[in-house]
Amino acid sequence: MAEHVDQVSYVSGRTRLYGIVGHPIEQVRSPEMFTAEFVSRQAEAILLPFHVLPEDFDCVVPALMKMPNLDGLIFTIPFKQRAMALADEIGPNARIVGAINALARRPDGGWQAEIFDGLGCVEGFRRRGILFAGKRVMLIGAGGAGSAIAVAIAHEGPEHMRLFDLDQARVSDLADKVRAVDGNITVESGDPAHDGFDILLNASPVGMLEDSRLPIAADRFSPRLTVFDAIVKPETTPLLALAESSGCTTVRGREMMRGQIARMTDFLGFRPQA
Amino acid sequence: MAEHVDQVSYVSGRTRLYGIVGHPIEQVRSPEMFTAEFVSRQAEAILLPFHVLPEDFDCVVPALMKMPNLDGLIFTIPFKQRAMALADEIGPNARIVGAINALARRPDGGWQAEIFDGLGCVEGFRRRGILFAGKRVMLIGAGGAGSAIAVAIAHEGPEHMRLFDLDQARVSDLADKVRAVDGNITVESGDPAHDGFDILLNASPVGMLEDSRLPIAADRFSPRLTVFDAIVKPETTPLLALAESSGCTTVRGREMMRGQIARMTDFLGFRPQA
Repeated sequence: MAEHVDQVSYVSGRTRLYGIVGHPIEQVRSPEMFTAEFVSRQAEAILLPFHVLPEDFDCVVPALMKMPNLDGLIFTIPFKQRAMALADEIGPNARIVGAINALARRPDGGWQAEIFDGLGCVEGFRRRGILFAGKRVMLIGAGGAGSAIAVAIAHEGPEHMRLFDLDQARVSDLADKVRAVDGNITVESGDPAHDGFDILLNASPVGMLEDSRLPIAADRFSPRLTVFDAIVKPETTPLLALAESSGCTTVRGREMMRGQIARMTDFLGFRPQA
Repeated sequence: MAEHVDQVSYVSGRTRLYGIVGHPIEQVRSPEMFTAEFVSRQAEAILLPFHVLPEDFDCVVPALMKMPNLDGLIFTIPFKQRAMALADEIGPNARIVGAINALARRPDGGWQAEIFDGLGCVEGFRRRGILFAGKRVMLIGAGGAGSAIAVAIAHEGPEHMRLFDLDQARVSDLADKVRAVDGNITVESGDPAHDGFDILLNASPVGMLEDSRLPIAADRFSPRLTVFDAIVKPETTPLLALAESSGCTTVRGREMMRGQIARMTDFLGFRPQA
């Protein structure tokens, strides 16, 4: 007799719940990516799409947090600023950036928050053996991603940071945040440059999808330069293509994304497998 | 280069959410069983364990229902009565039994409720080609499961129903509910019997796990009798063993469970595959 398939193996009464809270929700990639990371660490856990309307946020999210088998939430557009009010304890990056993207239940029942957009970039570099301490860093783009990246890098003790954005007010604001993290860093605003820098980072949208432009005027880089692009699609942006043809070390947007998932999964309570 | 497993296939931003609400929650089997049924119907949906403390019920459950990508809830101990208040429309079984175990979002945004504990039993019989219409039925046990089974059978037009329970008040109450469904059924209370009956149902705990007792005094049944046991463990109870050795048709607790899952999945909005 053929056996009817009575059950699936990936969810049970013991499954620990996590969710990504956003509006809209259908386009998010976190459920499949975080759940894969949880499973790779042997955790009986799943990350779900929680669609919350902005007018329901203050009712629905605190209610979700009352479920004893829900251990963490991540936040995406448009809730990253607003979610700060839910935390009992706010991490050093989130405090400076003024937004969170992860909230985890502590053993004592309180909730701690942090933002990992920039920490993911630092983690991507760390996994390639590249540290920011003592380095001269050029960052292009001071929007949401660029701000989080600048603040996370500032915590790593670089010697010098030059910031560029078409919006000068954003650059001034971000320079103040970097100085607030570490007063020893020489921070300046200025045009994109590569000569005299160790690490060049692009956190602007220039080079995304069909955009064939470079975010910096250059024909060739020194092979000593490390070049990073936060863009995920295409995987090899025009900037990264130039860096590769110049013999530079490159770090890709996908490495930042993986680094962020790994660091957030640590934060959500799952230790890496030895 | 070996590819890192970046994602799982069973959850995404488009996954529709369902949950079982209970306290405690770790022992429930619905997540793995309902999700398997959803998947067998090609639905991009999952049923999760939602652990809700009794003191949080009135805050948490209405909040869950505000999420636009949550389409249904099922309820277990201790919430089956209390959950009735959440429904805009209550089905015929739930109205008589005074409890619900399923709540589904209607296309107009309202919520409809029904109880399927008894409908699962009727469905298990239907799948074996056995109807209750015109039959003489003996039911042992008038607790939660027995009441739901009696009310569901009453909707099928049996000729006669005898009810037995050690608690006489329960039997009287249940007899009134059966008459409320269909005044044409001859309802009586009386000791367990098999002579002169077409269908014998056990909804008492006698014969569960290590209990080797029969719920009825008998050495042998007529092979014309159909015998049902609501007990799931063991699969073959002492009652079912006697029925099989007598040449009777038997219907098992697991068939009721499968019937209930199928009927509830219809109710939650997933059409069976042709």
